[in-house]
Amino acid sequence: MEVSMELHAVNRKKLLSRMSDQVKSMGQPVNGVILLQGGDECTRYCTDHTPLFRQESYFAYLFGVKEPGFFGTLDLSNGKSALYCPRLDPEYAVWLGEIQPPSHFKDLYGVDEVHYVDELVEVLNKSRAGVSSWLLYLLYGKNSDSGNFSQPAQFEGIEDFAVDKEVLHPVLSECRVHKSKLEIDLMRYVCKVSSAAHIQVMQECKPGMREYQLEAIFLHHVYRYGGCRHCSYTCICATGTNSSVLHYGHAAAPNDRLLENGDMALLDMGAEYHFYGSDITCSFPVNGTFTDNQKVVYTAVLKAQNAVIRAIRPGVSWVDLHKLAESCILETLKENGVLQGDVQAMMESRLGAIFMPHGLGHFLGLDTHDTGGYPAGTERINSPGLKSLRTVRILEEGMVVTVEPGCYFIEALLVPALEDPAQRNFFVEPALEVFRHTGGVRLEDDILVTANGCENLTICPREIEDVEAVMKGSWPM
Amino acid sequence: MEVSMELHAVNRKKLLSRMSDQVKSMGQPVNGVILLQGGDECTRYCTDHTPLFRQESYFAYLFGVKEPGFFGTLDLSNGKSALYCPRLDPEYAVWLGEIQPPSHFKDLYGVDEVHYVDELVEVLNKSRAGVSSWLLYLLYGKNSDSGNFSQPAQFEGIEDFAVDKEVLHPVLSECRVHKSKLEIDLMRYVCKVSSAAHIQVMQECKPGMREYQLEAIFLHHVYRYGGCRHCSYTCICATGTNSSVLHYGHAAAPNDRLLENGDMALLDMGAEYHFYGSDITCSFPVNGTFTDNQKVVYTAVLKAQNAVIRAIRPGVSWVDLHKLAESCILETLKENGVLQGDVQAMMESRLGAIFMPHGLGHFLGLDTHDTGGYPAGTERINSPGLKSLRTVRILEEGMVVTVEPGCYFIEALLVPALEDPAQRNFFVEPALEVFRHTGGVRLEDDILVTANGCENLTICPREIEDVEAVMKGSWPM
Repeated sequence: MEVSMELHAVNRKKLLSRMSDQVKSMGQPVNGVILLQGGDECTRYCTDHTPLFRQESYFAYLFGVKEPGFFGTLDLSNGKSALYCPRLDPEYAVWLGEIQPPSHFKDLYGVDEVHYVDELVEVLNKSRAGVSSWLLYLLYGKNSDSGNFSQPAQFEGIEDFAVDKEVLHPVLSECRVHKSKLEIDLMRYVCKVSSAAHIQVMQECKPGMREYQLEAIFLHHVYRYGGCRHCSYTCICATGTNSSVLHYGHAAAPNDRLLENGDMALLDMGAEYHFYGSDITCSFPVNGTFTDNQKVVYTAVLKAQNAVIRAIRPGVSWVDLHKLAESCILETLKENGVLQGDVQAMMESRLGAIFMPHGLGHFLGLDTHDTGGYPAGTERINSPGLKSLRTVRILEEGMVVTVEPGCYFIEALLVPALEDPAQRNFFVEPALEVFRHTGGVRLEDDILVTANGCENLTICPREIEDVEAVMKGSWPM
Repeated sequence: MEVSMELHAVNRKKLLSRMSDQVKSMGQPVNGVILLQGGDECTRYCTDHTPLFRQESYFAYLFGVKEPGFFGTLDLSNGKSALYCPRLDPEYAVWLGEIQPPSHFKDLYGVDEVHYVDELVEVLNKSRAGVSSWLLYLLYGKNSDSGNFSQPAQFEGIEDFAVDKEVLHPVLSECRVHKSKLEIDLMRYVCKVSSAAHIQVMQECKPGMREYQLEAIFLHHVYRYGGCRHCSYTCICATGTNSSVLHYGHAAAPNDRLLENGDMALLDMGAEYHFYGSDITCSFPVNGTFTDNQKVVYTAVLKAQNAVIRAIRPGVSWVDLHKLAESCILETLKENGVLQGDVQAMMESRLGAIFMPHGLGHFLGLDTHDTGGYPAGTERINSPGLKSLRTVRILEEGMVVTVEPGCYFIEALLVPALEDPAQRNFFVEPALEVFRHTGGVRLEDDILVTANGCENLTICPREIEDVEAVMKGSWPM
C-alpha cells in the first residue's frame, strides 16, 4: 500500500489549529515554534549491533520520517513545517547508502523546508527575531500506560530559548485520539493484512507444532504479503495453560510450548504498517474442533464481544462497556453451572476481574496502547479490573479502540478468590475444577467508532462454526 | 536443538582459570568475586512498548540466562557460581507468567546457588568476611567495533566494596575468542539452519518480488524450522545497485526495491540460536542465470573466498589473508580487462580498498562482530581497506571467523579513484563503465579454524553451476 504524506500534513494542520486555539485561550499571542526530536538509532549494550530503528511515535505522527536523527518544527505564526536532517559523514555513502540532500527529504516528506540539524539554532533565531512572547513548545508529559515521560527535544544552545513544556503534550496526545480519513484507510489496511495472517495461522495450525511456529507463520505472512516489517508488539502465541498468562510470549516465556491435541490456542498478534498498528486476538482449538467445555468459555467471551460491539457508538462510556463485557461472561459461566448466585452481586464483588483482570481494550494507533487514555480531568478507578482500564472515556467518532474481552482461569487470582468470603460462594467448585488449568480465551477486534455506531476493521472468523470451517480450509468466509 | 547448560559451565570454568592465572601473575592473592549484571528490559521511548529482550552477550556467555534483570557472580576463591534473580511483583503472575523460585533457576541454569537480587550485598559480604585483598571484579572495557564501553554492574551499596574494573574485560573478551566443543556444535547448528534458509530464498526468488519478501522467507525459515527467534543482525537484502551499499537494509534503506530481471541479489542474513549467531552472504542473479558480466565479478569474489579458505590454518595472519583476497579480486578484474598494470603495484596503491572497502571478515560468536579483535598490543593499520579490518590477529585453533570477500562498484569510491593520479591509470575506463551501477557481490562463509586447517560451517552453493542448479530447484546439492 502506498501511503500519501498528506496523512501527516493533515495531522500537522490539526495540531497547529488546536495549539493556536489553546495558546489563544491562555491569553497568549500565537507565536513561537513547536519542536520535536525524532528518535536516534541505538546499539545493543556495548556492541555495534543496531536493532532495527523505529521512529518515535509523536514524531512519526507529525512527519512520517522513517530515518533516525531528525528534528522537526511547526511555526505557530505562519504554519510552516520544517525538518532537520543529520549531516552525514561521507563514509555513510560507502556503508549505509547514498547521502541525500535536504531537497530529497523535502520532496519525500512534503514539508515546507528542510535544513540540517546543525542549522536548527539559526532557523529558530530567525523565527524568533523581533517577535514578542516567542516560545519554543517542547513535548514533555506522562504516558498513562507506561508511567514514563516523553523526553523534550535536546540540542546545543537550547538554554538561549524560552521554552514551554506544558502546553504541547496534552494537545498533541489528544490529536492522536481521533483518526483522520487517511489514518483510517491505513489502519483498515493493516488490520486486513493481520486478519489474513491470523487465518493463515489457523489453517496451518495442528497438534505437534510449537507455539513459535505459529508466530513464524504470522510474521512471514504480514511481511511477505503485506510489507509489514514491524509488529505492534511481541506476538503472544499461548496454548494450553499459557493462554491464562495475559502477556505471554516475552523472553522469559518465549512461545516455545509443544501444541497438544485438545489444547486451545490464544494468539494475540498484530502487524504495523507505516507506523500504524493493529492488535488482534484469535482463540481456537489447535485441532480445529471445539469440545463442549471449550465452547462454554469461548461463547462467554464471544457474547461479551458481540454485545460490546453492538453497543459501541459515540456517547457510550468505556467503563460501562467494560462492565457489559464482564456481565456477559459471568452470565454465561452461570448458565453453564460454573458460577451461581446473582450476577449483579457478582459484579459488585468484582468477581468479573477474577476472570478478566485486564481492561476491555485501549486506543490503537501509532502505539498499541495509544495516547489519550487519561486526559486531564479523568482518573483511574481504584477497583479490581477497572483499575486496569487503559481509558475511562466516553466514546467519540473517529476513535479506534480494541475490544478484547477475555475469560481466563488464572490460579494466582482463583486461589485467593476461593478463600474470599465475599466471592467464594459464587463458585460451583466441582464445575470450576473442570476449567481450571485449561488457560483462557480472548477475542480482540479493532473497532472504529463512527458517527452512528462502529466499523469492525478486523476480518477474522468469530462464530464457532466459522472458526471450525476456516480451520478446515474454508476461506474466504 | 536442545542446548546443554554445560556449555556455560565450561565457559565459566575457563574464565575462572584464566582470571586466577591473571591475578596470580599480578602478584595478588586469588580472592574476590567476579560480578556481571545481565540486561534489563527497556521500553520504546516513553511508551509501554517492550521490544523483545535479548540478553547482554557477556552475561549470556557465562550464564545462558534468557530473562532480564539478573546478576551473576563467580567466586575466585572457591569457583562457586551464583545467579541473582529479580524479586517479582505478585502482579507478574497474572500478566507475565508463573513466578519461579530461585530453585527453578538453579535447576534451569545449573549454577551453584541462586539468590534474589536484593540479597546480593549480603552474599558478597559473606564472601568478603575475613578475606584479605578481596576485590569485586567488574566488567568495564572498550568494544573495538563500536567504540562503546561495557557498563560495569551497578547496585545499591556498591560503594562499600573495593572494585577492580581493569582485569576482567580483557580476560573475558579473550575467553570468547576460542570456541569450545559445545559452542562449536551450537554454531554448526545455527549455520546449518541459516544456510538452509538462504537456499529456500534462492529457490523462491524471482523478478517482480520485493527485496523484503526475500527477508520474510529467510526469517520464516529460520524461526519456523530452526527455532531461531532472533537474527544476528538486520537482514541485508540488496538487489541491483543497492548491493554496493555494504550495510543496506536498515530503516533508511529498508529492503523495499522491486527485483528486476537481470539484477544480481546480495543477501547477507544470519540467524541466532541460544545467543550464538551465524553470518552468511549469498550473491546470485535474481532470475537464476548468470550473465557473462555477472560471472566476471562473481568469479573474482569466489576465487578470493576459495583462496582464503584454502589458506586458513593456525599461524596465518588475518592481514595477509585480507591481502590475498584483494589480490585475487584485482587479478580477476585484470584478466577480464577491467584493470590494467601490475597487481602488486595496485596493491601498494591500495586499489583493492576501492573494490572491497571492508575487512575480510570478523570473529563470530555471541555477537556478530565478536570480541577480541584488537587485544592489548595490537593496533589498527591506518591504510585504506586495512583500517576497516575488525581484527589483525594471527589465526588460532578454535577461532570462528567470517570470510566475506566482496567486489563492489561504489560511486563514492570510484569517482575519486578515477581522479587520483596514483590509481586512475589502473582502470580501463570503457570496461569499467560496463560494471558501474551494477552493485556488487559478496560471499560470506563462517569458518572454524581447526588444528590443521579449517571447517566451513556454511552449507550454501558457491560455484556458479551449483548456484544455478539450486535456483532451478536442485537440492540437496
